[in-house]
Amino acid sequence: MTREQEEVAESNLAFYRAFESLDIREMEKVWLREDYVRCIHPGWARISGWEDVLSSWRRIFENTQEMRFELTEVTIHVQGVLAWLTLYENISTRVEGETSRGIILTTNIFEKWQGRWWIIHHHGAPTVAPPSKPPSTLH
Amino acid sequence: MTREQEEVAESNLAFYRAFESLDIREMEKVWLREDYVRCIHPGWARISGWEDVLSSWRRIFENTQEMRFELTEVTIHVQGVLAWLTLYENISTRVEGETSRGIILTTNIFEKWQGRWWIIHHHGAPTVAPPSKPPSTLH
Repeated sequence: MTREQEEVAESNLAFYRAFESLDIREMEKVWLREDYVRCIHPGWARISGWEDVLSSWRRIFENTQEMRFELTEVTIHVQGVLAWLTLYENISTRVEGETSRGIILTTNIFEKWQGRWWIIHHHGAPTVAPPSKPPSTLH
Repeated sequence: MTREQEEVAESNLAFYRAFESLDIREMEKVWLREDYVRCIHPGWARISGWEDVLSSWRRIFENTQEMRFELTEVTIHVQGVLAWLTLYENISTRVEGETSRGIILTTNIFEKWQGRWWIIHHHGAPTVAPPSKPPSTLH
């Protein structure tokens, strides 16, 4: 991994740590404050712009008691001030007292600004065919 | 729209025309021939590298008789030699004689190489909440 890829990997982990924290102030710190940010939660419509994206996280956080990620098959590419990743989110979540597990296949895009990588695009989608682990260990 | 955005829009349309053509030779012309290309068909596992991505299109084309796209809510951003788009694919498809309609929410990434924009990333995902059209016109 190049040094830049390592930086991106760290910023990507910071995004998932913010997600796990369920604290909107942590999520605010990782998104670039721009109108052109986009967020697609699994199965949702596209959300555009910093304000609406943050509102969507607030909604998710208010309705979630616990969220844990194991990221697998992470690929990172850097080109100039942009970096794009694909990865599997192996998720354990607790909503209204009920624990569930699932796999989300995700594209994340980061932009470098003032020496830091900020997330500008998150597209998580349901997937039916995890390649690396047998479904029995995850369901 | 800037001139670069127009170029990207044109390359994005070329990708969907190749999709509609159901001709693998047309699809070959729009993908950058690199190991780092990624393709995520709705609900599938991630596919990596030019060879495997093209094989996946071959499989889709062999099992599809007709495919028509109307693209809506297209947003295009360009930064250096990369461009990323989000859009809704309003699809009419015919598989084994049966016509169906659906909406896919998509992230596409293009890279400029030798003066042309090539698709390097396609992530299409099922969506349940189209914002711009009432479901009644699409189902």
